[in-house]
Amino acid sequence: MSSGSEHIIKSYDSELARLTGEIVRMGELSVTQLESAIDVIARRDERAAQRVVANDDAIDQLEQEISHDVVRLLALRAPMAGDLRNVFAALRIAADIERIGDYAANVAKRSIPLSMVAPVSPTKGLDYLAKLAAAEVREVLVAYRDQDAEHAYQVWKSDAELDEAYTGYFRQLLTYMMEDPRNITPCTHLLFMAKNIERIGDHATNIAESIWFQVHGETLDKQRVKRDFTSSPELTKLGE
Amino acid sequence: MSSGSEHIIKSYDSELARLTGEIVRMGELSVTQLESAIDVIARRDERAAQRVVANDDAIDQLEQEISHDVVRLLALRAPMAGDLRNVFAALRIAADIERIGDYAANVAKRSIPLSMVAPVSPTKGLDYLAKLAAAEVREVLVAYRDQDAEHAYQVWKSDAELDEAYTGYFRQLLTYMMEDPRNITPCTHLLFMAKNIERIGDHATNIAESIWFQVHGETLDKQRVKRDFTSSPELTKLGE
Repeated sequence: MSSGSEHIIKSYDSELARLTGEIVRMGELSVTQLESAIDVIARRDERAAQRVVANDDAIDQLEQEISHDVVRLLALRAPMAGDLRNVFAALRIAADIERIGDYAANVAKRSIPLSMVAPVSPTKGLDYLAKLAAAEVREVLVAYRDQDAEHAYQVWKSDAELDEAYTGYFRQLLTYMMEDPRNITPCTHLLFMAKNIERIGDHATNIAESIWFQVHGETLDKQRVKRDFTSSPELTKLGE
Repeated sequence: MSSGSEHIIKSYDSELARLTGEIVRMGELSVTQLESAIDVIARRDERAAQRVVANDDAIDQLEQEISHDVVRLLALRAPMAGDLRNVFAALRIAADIERIGDYAANVAKRSIPLSMVAPVSPTKGLDYLAKLAAAEVREVLVAYRDQDAEHAYQVWKSDAELDEAYTGYFRQLLTYMMEDPRNITPCTHLLFMAKNIERIGDHATNIAESIWFQVHGETLDKQRVKRDFTSSPELTKLGE
């Protein structure tokens, strides 16, 4: 190998490392957005909620820049098989983080009408969901930074807990709605907010799958049963 | 220019044309999924609903293959600026179509518990939303195939109609829920189904934006006011 191609390979690696760092920072930004969204619900702070919504543009912008960087890197460097996996993972993970940011912004957005109506505030359940989801995202970012497939797999498995908590909270909200029609509108917002948070967990598991593929070159077995029981027939008995 | 590099450029173009064709077919598959999902609601056919859910794997698989093809094409061909835009658009559009497929599968999935409870079936509104969304996706695929930015822009503008129809349907569902607590569970499913369809429209507008960028090399002005009024304060008056 000539020193010329070594030089190219080295700078390819360093560009990839820079990209990974940017993706992790973008991920941390998305977790902060989720935590801020939950915080504004408790404080009923409309202006702060609007700030969270506005911040999402920065995450979208970052994702666009990262995707463009990845594509440019590919076009200039013509990487080989293993490197292609890294690049492919980077693209996927950045897209998942962008969606996590979207969901966090949606939670903040719905907190505005919620704060104007809520005669009942069963938002503790929502806090708990958000804590689980934020922890999942933080852990999967650590796994990505460390290229630790086993750690990623642990995060992937832990999403079941969030799914179960979501299902429980969904049931709880339905009972509030049945008790008093005045609860219907606020609880509808809470249902959507909870669903957004549950989806954040799904994206954390997508990221875990991308890490697994990046490290092992094969896909993680997806035979796990999906645990959002709210669209399963049993739940509907509640409404009979 | 040597005939050798001409040859490379030509086969790059033909690979890109093949990719575009695959993406359009994948898009048509996702529209068919949406139409099937709406169809199974009317027929209350659980087995058919499960088929729609299962078909979504095929779309996910296609998207993975297309992304891999794109990345491989990039790595092998080192395309120039205009070509990079094409490649970038292909990646984005395939990802949007994959999500359209997900939302269609979610609609089908929720039709199963819905068919077991629904004492009230205000599903006409849902049919109408689905028709608007399916038309939007079909049109934007034509615009993509033809590389017609003006056509894409027309689709982008037409999404406002779907957003308004969604908001109206959302209000209608809230009134059903307030009228009779037995409507709460089925209407909750319908709320999520309607939201899924409204999101399909958003992805059609994303695709329109990608086409615009691909053709013009600049982003479409996004100053349009978002028209999902269900998370705006006014709507909440219904629940007061």
